[in-house]
Amino acid sequence: MEQKIGKEIQLIRFPQGLPDENIFEIVNVNIPEPKEGEFLVRNIWMSVDPYMRGRMRSPEETKSYIDSFQLKKPLEGSCVGQIVESKNDLFKVGEYILGNYGWREYWISNGGDVMKIDSKIAPIQSFLGVLGMTGLTAYVGIVKIGKLNEGKDTVFISAASGAVGSIACQIAKIKGCHVVGCAGTEGKVDWLLDEIKLDYAFNYKTVGEHNLSSELKKACPEGIDLYFDNVGGKQLEAALDNMKSFGRIVLCGMISQYNLTHPLPGPSNLFLAITNRVRMQGFIVRDHYDMLNEFHSSMYKWISEGKIKWKETVIEGLEKAPKAFIGLFKGENFGKMLIKIGSEI
Amino acid sequence: MEQKIGKEIQLIRFPQGLPDENIFEIVNVNIPEPKEGEFLVRNIWMSVDPYMRGRMRSPEETKSYIDSFQLKKPLEGSCVGQIVESKNDLFKVGEYILGNYGWREYWISNGGDVMKIDSKIAPIQSFLGVLGMTGLTAYVGIVKIGKLNEGKDTVFISAASGAVGSIACQIAKIKGCHVVGCAGTEGKVDWLLDEIKLDYAFNYKTVGEHNLSSELKKACPEGIDLYFDNVGGKQLEAALDNMKSFGRIVLCGMISQYNLTHPLPGPSNLFLAITNRVRMQGFIVRDHYDMLNEFHSSMYKWISEGKIKWKETVIEGLEKAPKAFIGLFKGENFGKMLIKIGSEI
Repeated sequence: MEQKIGKEIQLIRFPQGLPDENIFEIVNVNIPEPKEGEFLVRNIWMSVDPYMRGRMRSPEETKSYIDSFQLKKPLEGSCVGQIVESKNDLFKVGEYILGNYGWREYWISNGGDVMKIDSKIAPIQSFLGVLGMTGLTAYVGIVKIGKLNEGKDTVFISAASGAVGSIACQIAKIKGCHVVGCAGTEGKVDWLLDEIKLDYAFNYKTVGEHNLSSELKKACPEGIDLYFDNVGGKQLEAALDNMKSFGRIVLCGMISQYNLTHPLPGPSNLFLAITNRVRMQGFIVRDHYDMLNEFHSSMYKWISEGKIKWKETVIEGLEKAPKAFIGLFKGENFGKMLIKIGSEI
Repeated sequence: MEQKIGKEIQLIRFPQGLPDENIFEIVNVNIPEPKEGEFLVRNIWMSVDPYMRGRMRSPEETKSYIDSFQLKKPLEGSCVGQIVESKNDLFKVGEYILGNYGWREYWISNGGDVMKIDSKIAPIQSFLGVLGMTGLTAYVGIVKIGKLNEGKDTVFISAASGAVGSIACQIAKIKGCHVVGCAGTEGKVDWLLDEIKLDYAFNYKTVGEHNLSSELKKACPEGIDLYFDNVGGKQLEAALDNMKSFGRIVLCGMISQYNLTHPLPGPSNLFLAITNRVRMQGFIVRDHYDMLNEFHSSMYKWISEGKIKWKETVIEGLEKAPKAFIGLFKGENFGKMLIKIGSEI
């Protein structure tokens, strides 16, 4: 049989600051035949996510919650593909598979680290976004870490038009809360107001760093019960200025910080966390897979009722994945950033 | 009957930065006769506490968790006195009373806002410290907010020889934890090691700001489960560097910040609260008075068993209270700072 060749993207060195495309290399590799019990998946979609920047550090540089990517090896990340060859009776050619082997065209599995997905529930790429880790992150953050009080809380969400933020906004709205979001373009703000029906949304860039706190005061005159932080930095500081007593801050991501070569000072008003008895809590979605069933059943229902909308920014071609990844840090995504690697069988 | 005259200390203007004695004024005032149902207390002891600095701000300057002190009125704070005249059958001359009318020689009460104290349990001034709000603050912080895991946790406590810190250290030790403390003089560090039997203690001044993180790494090679923060600033940053996964940071006080005229930057490594899933939570003792009975029964038992030690720095004379208060911010107290106002009947 002819040797199958596939492309994969490798990290060839760790970036300093904002990554550029030169740290990535696209490589042709031989694709082995699946052994007995294995099957071969051809990727259709892959996800790029801000958290991946945390894995692009040398193991010595910083302790991170997941291992560093290995140099000269294919990068990893969530992907959806289709089985094209199988020597495993439980996994049949044509079935759709969710795995963690993005950044490449083909991969082999024995079925132990994958999930079959049902294309009748929603478009298959949704399992990388609203129905995947992205959606679960929003759900866990709002419901479990943030302990949202249904029908009562005033909620602020930064990066509100992003993949996680936009779902978090809608969960909080479905649960009857007053929801305020911010984003970095007028188009995103309009979408938050017109489509997602947020109670208030603003463009943090035009408002300006020094006015974030007063803008939030305008948006939440009584204060914020729950801040879902995807950004860190000045937005966290402004939220701290406006927290209600016994408010909660869910620390989900700090995209403003990931590419800093020198750490920026943190919020100068942390003392307000004492005076207002604020709880700030960091979390990582993989600690909360026990909520996957609850999340799926809620989300399937909301989607079937038309209550959840989502945006995708789709980039065509595996070779564009590095550019798409870098674009995350420039706000080039609107909702979930996805790479379309190939077509279905 | 001759008009009784008493001294009181008033705040005559709000300080900028570290207060000096010129913002205080000692004033002679007429002491009224108690009316029917009232009694007159003569103070014996009063407490000065760092939190009082937060009340020395104009109401406009900052929202704080308790009201600003009023200018040209006597300051307030915990005190222990003795009833010297009474027109209330439930409160008899000679009884010891805990109240919130410090900074003065005499005060009138109808019994609604005071607690009788029993001088047989411990010296009466202990009800301002180890058996009072100070002790309760340590107890609530360690047990309720910090959710100490008995016999398991590695605990770090800053300002460990201070009024709250020294009690927090001992509660954590009694509960079988590995406890690390820091303080600002060699004498305090020696006391923590020799008397309080901490597992590790260091002088944050001689270690130096830039080495705090590596010192903590040495003290807690496996990381910190619970950090009881009385200081904020660089000590909080160093603790964040060393938190274990799912660690907790109890935000009790930030004495490093109270006298700043311009806010200092906060910790630049807050992102670690995400990667390590850290919970940071501010609290104020007055929200937790429901724990007073539990606290008292534990503390009475520990004291009777000789398991709790405490230090007092006693300053004689009401007129020295301003100097004593200012001394809190210079580390002049060792344990609880107390003013002896008068003698017992």
